[in-house]
Amino acid sequence: MAEENRDSRKAILEAAREGFATRGFYGTSMEYITKNAGVSKGAVYWYFPGKWEVYKTVISDEAERLKQIVLPPGVELSRGEALDFFLTRGEQLIDIFADDTVCRLLFVYLQLEAMRGKDDMAEFLTSLRASITEDVISVIQTAYPEGAFSVLGITQREFVNVFMSVLGGIVLNIGLTITRQEAGRSWRLLITSVLGGLGGD
Amino acid sequence: MAEENRDSRKAILEAAREGFATRGFYGTSMEYITKNAGVSKGAVYWYFPGKWEVYKTVISDEAERLKQIVLPPGVELSRGEALDFFLTRGEQLIDIFADDTVCRLLFVYLQLEAMRGKDDMAEFLTSLRASITEDVISVIQTAYPEGAFSVLGITQREFVNVFMSVLGGIVLNIGLTITRQEAGRSWRLLITSVLGGLGGD
Repeated sequence: MAEENRDSRKAILEAAREGFATRGFYGTSMEYITKNAGVSKGAVYWYFPGKWEVYKTVISDEAERLKQIVLPPGVELSRGEALDFFLTRGEQLIDIFADDTVCRLLFVYLQLEAMRGKDDMAEFLTSLRASITEDVISVIQTAYPEGAFSVLGITQREFVNVFMSVLGGIVLNIGLTITRQEAGRSWRLLITSVLGGLGGD
Repeated sequence: MAEENRDSRKAILEAAREGFATRGFYGTSMEYITKNAGVSKGAVYWYFPGKWEVYKTVISDEAERLKQIVLPPGVELSRGEALDFFLTRGEQLIDIFADDTVCRLLFVYLQLEAMRGKDDMAEFLTSLRASITEDVISVIQTAYPEGAFSVLGITQREFVNVFMSVLGGIVLNIGLTITRQEAGRSWRLLITSVLGGLGGD
């Protein structure tokens, strides 16, 4: 029974993930999710108060999954390891996004709706990004304490934002105007150029 | 009469621009465009065979408008002027996109639908980007002839793609996770770091 419950919840989230990516939040009804998950309507409402909570769970799970891969907890870096760390993690993310269009679509769609002025979406995106930013900062500050970026005229938080923007921009174009290999090369070029400006330790 | 015609066409494109940005291509009907333009259905079909042609005209006009501002025809650059040229033009684009959410939405939406596998959208986006890339290359090659970027391990075309990705990624976040000032600083940091790797002339 407990096993069955877990399966239902998983099926709901999988159906919702695919629906939200291909049809968007507003284009995906609870009926669509119920039908594609192969569960009863009662089952969906047993786990989630409404569509908005299903949506937030799908996106949060996605972000958590990516974070587990690229930002294992407790990482400490020396200055000498940092460049390689960022190169590798960025390339990993590029590979994941290149392989998984649904994952990419989920984040681009959230960004579009936030930009369209949907306040719930904007607030959710902002808090999601803030939490990811904090996690990245906690890793980079072992290698680059606050102030290390002052040579470049930016703060730790700004540095993280620059590279999240860059990664987002690159990922957006994979398969459309650039190949995965070009995406990887762009990432390496940009991160090496910027971190090169900081000098070694 | 000629004047009236021009006004109708303009009104159609303005209504369509707003509709496509806020509701998307599929969410904007010809009826919506007709009603919001204050013209007859006959007038719309007099100018455009269908919604797809209205859409392509809106996006192409938008791209042309931006290009006129940042890439005036016939520009020739020396190596010494190039950095400043890219800094200024990028900042201009950031300002335009920061002020004009509708313009931003049009391009992000096109990218999303192309990513969703809508073939017409993907093909249109690819050809639009290819044409813009050609125009940018024709400007940069006066300062950086083919081969100048080989120090960085990339070609002219790849260089242009890197910076269109970067600009896209930065613009996507303005007003959501970064301010316009931070967007400008990110742009300056990235372009200065990469072009700095090329040395002077």
